[in-house]
Amino acid sequence: MSQTLGRLAAVIESRKPENGGDPATSYVARLMAKGDDAILKKIGEEATELVMAAKDARHGAGSENVLYECADLWFHSMVLLARFDLTPQQVLDELARREGLSGIDEKASRKE
Amino acid sequence: MSQTLGRLAAVIESRKPENGGDPATSYVARLMAKGDDAILKKIGEEATELVMAAKDARHGAGSENVLYECADLWFHSMVLLARFDLTPQQVLDELARREGLSGIDEKASRKE
Amino acid sequence: MSQTLGRLAAVIESRKPENGGDPATSYVARLMAKGDDAILKKIGEEATELVMAAKDARHGAGSENVLYECADLWFHSMVLLARFDLTPQQVLDELARREGLSGIDEKASRKE
Amino acid sequence: MSQTLGRLAAVIESRKPENGGDPATSYVARLMAKGDDAILKKIGEEATELVMAAKDARHGAGSENVLYECADLWFHSMVLLARFDLTPQQVLDELARREGLSGIDEKASRKE
Repeated sequence: MSQTLGRLAAVIESRKPENGGDPATSYVARLMAKGDDAILKKIGEEATELVMAAKDARHGAGSENVLYECADLWFHSMVLLARFDLTPQQVLDELARREGLSGIDEKASRKE
Repeated sequence: MSQTLGRLAAVIESRKPENGGDPATSYVARLMAKGDDAILKKIGEEATELVMAAKDARHGAGSENVLYECADLWFHSMVLLARFDLTPQQVLDELARREGLSGIDEKASRKE
Repeated sequence: MSQTLGRLAAVIESRKPENGGDPATSYVARLMAKGDDAILKKIGEEATELVMAAKDARHGAGSENVLYECADLWFHSMVLLARFDLTPQQVLDELARREGLSGIDEKASRKE
Repeated sequence: MSQTLGRLAAVIESRKPENGGDPATSYVARLMAKGDDAILKKIGEEATELVMAAKDARHGAGSENVLYECADLWFHSMVLLARFDLTPQQVLDELARREGLSGIDEKASRKE
């Protein structure tokens, strides 16, 4: 796996309440302590912000915000994964599996 | 970068209309041909599906769908990145930069 | 209640499978037959489209699409309400209750 | 129009900065002062919360939260409408127009 994703997943894991994460000092621990709904709201919010950044970029703003908002979305996805004891490696494996089976075009036969 | 993300980004890049991607045979080429809005709608839709999968998992369904929907969301994020000539490596670099600067807790000082 | 909302709610109600709605001829019946998830995906999608339309309008497009997408979002919200045997009148009552209790500014003391 | 929607639209209108709305005391004025993006983020967030509430209701929670979250979504839609000098009456007119032209089944011929 990407070293970054692996390191980031390890940090997120260490911020779980049961692993001693402290809501007073850690954003992730705070989000975890609030529970599922707080994380899911962030997923919805960050996806919306990514859409907004893409629209702004298309209308003349720089594309850096697309990058930042994508990073935010992936970051909060990883918090959600950790919440369900899943790892980014499993997401990468799933992406590789789809690619490996029949290439990305497997998607061609899927729901739109 | 993760080999999977790198390979996937290369495949997506090759499916751009200007690189010969064929909408008749490739889902990504078809999405690219439809334009920004089609991709952005998928971001919104896949984020919603991830939220739904997490709710179902919490209420007793398996967590596999959380994984699949997260893969879908990351996949379509990568199509959007390609659309703006950005790469997953840049997203990873941004995540590493945030982590490296002051750890994930940098987030503690950011907007909630 | 608004006559339009009332009439629309009645039409949606009549399109429920248990009320004889026919998926072959009615969009609402088809959506109802597909189940909760199909409706919820539309909520996520229409909200995203509303955001996109607002961004386009701000960047120079007309604001008609904001209107159309808002109508789409309210329409699908009403399908969801019907699904849970709720009515737009109850939504209006809730809005009036909040307004009546302490005015819109009640919101000032709520979560952001 | 529904009296509630009309009254609510009037209140929202009065909270616009140019109409003297005070961010210190009014949630709507505060949201308006923050600008488009703050409102659009709320649309995305409230849509996500509606989806979450529907999932919870289906899995055994009461359906009141579906009602509350729908009210939140419509409320913030109305703030967005006001932002673009649109009114809920225009949304109702659009819904009536669609209904009137060919009934709700007009939707049958539209994009899914």
